[in-house]
Amino acid sequence: MTELGRLYGLGIGPGDPELLTLKAHRILTTVPVIAYPISEKGKALARAIVADFIHPEQIEIPMCLPFSVERASQSYYVKAAEKIAEHLKVGRDVGVLCEGEPMLYGTFIYLFQRLSRQFPTEIVPGISSTMASAAMLGVPITYRNDVLSIMPATLDEITLRARLAVADAAIIIKLGRHFAKVYKILDELGLLYRSLYIERATQTHQRILTITEVNATEVSYWSLIMIPSFSLPD
Amino acid sequence: MTELGRLYGLGIGPGDPELLTLKAHRILTTVPVIAYPISEKGKALARAIVADFIHPEQIEIPMCLPFSVERASQSYYVKAAEKIAEHLKVGRDVGVLCEGEPMLYGTFIYLFQRLSRQFPTEIVPGISSTMASAAMLGVPITYRNDVLSIMPATLDEITLRARLAVADAAIIIKLGRHFAKVYKILDELGLLYRSLYIERATQTHQRILTITEVNATEVSYWSLIMIPSFSLPD
Repeated sequence: MTELGRLYGLGIGPGDPELLTLKAHRILTTVPVIAYPISEKGKALARAIVADFIHPEQIEIPMCLPFSVERASQSYYVKAAEKIAEHLKVGRDVGVLCEGEPMLYGTFIYLFQRLSRQFPTEIVPGISSTMASAAMLGVPITYRNDVLSIMPATLDEITLRARLAVADAAIIIKLGRHFAKVYKILDELGLLYRSLYIERATQTHQRILTITEVNATEVSYWSLIMIPSFSLPD
Repeated sequence: MTELGRLYGLGIGPGDPELLTLKAHRILTTVPVIAYPISEKGKALARAIVADFIHPEQIEIPMCLPFSVERASQSYYVKAAEKIAEHLKVGRDVGVLCEGEPMLYGTFIYLFQRLSRQFPTEIVPGISSTMASAAMLGVPITYRNDVLSIMPATLDEITLRARLAVADAAIIIKLGRHFAKVYKILDELGLLYRSLYIERATQTHQRILTITEVNATEVSYWSLIMIPSFSLPD
């Protein structure tokens, strides 16, 4: 009987290839098979991040995984899980490239749910863009007794406002076309002056803008707003 | 005139030396001076994590930095910042070892506030124990439209209860002697069955316990409770 292959959820960090962990780098460079998401237009951001580490002998599985996990998108995940399972069944380890941290808002979670009961699975944590943004912006996120809330801009206006109203520190992710809604709420709550905007943190095309200068029609999905803790420590 | 040295806040991750990033590893192994916190008993956890990467020629600055940043502790931070500044002034780069992520509840923040206006400073993000715990527990933290709140157990009971009552997913850090208080709140809110307990995630002495089996008098500062998002994704 063939031993089953091992499934790795490889956190590869937010964009700078040097932000891979030693562990993710070791596994990435030794597994026989790698899988990664591609956009509908065929772009493979995760693969691009680690391109220099990939060997020509490695088998590659590009997976078209829609961001929105609606019922209609389920078939994409089923198909991707099946392709990965084919290799695991015959004993080949598969490393799934996950931007940022696999277990935090990651599309990997949907593959994990489908495969981890059947196959030995290991998650390798990665640097989340939420954390890397603090380093790029040069600001502490939170300290002492403060609560940090991480929330997607895709939330409805009422929930977003309620959560932001009580947050000591907040990070609002997945801005994209939701920027104008978020901006309005931050303005109403008097939080604009504490809000920092960053796009594609640590990636080649990283941009940091004053929040009042952001053009709402041009905001990327890969941008976030950070509201650091209010009180500066002594 | 001598060029100033560069201050690095080096995120070294939660405990497993392989969870250093390639960047933190490169800088750690090339800076002439490293600084790290030691406990009042002289224990140096951060140094122990990266012990295999340190060269004998590197100058070491052990810093006694009390966890509680009360007024009485300020002098410790002043003294540590001065010692680091001595090297930066004469052009020596200094890498400060930071467990987890430097900008998230890190004692490094207090050194950063004292030194970053005077000296060129770079933060290298690290894997936070909050993120690594998900990998070790084998559970997704949060997905879709859920809000994740990270909060210290040191908060007063009323604030903790209010924040946990509205959290979709939560991570409660710095448990230590606050475990009993947190447990009571989780029980009252009906959250115990979703609560996962982990101690020293990814470190040699990592322990995962069922929350009802934890002995409240033996809980480490380095333990946390994770309450993952409620709804499992399809």
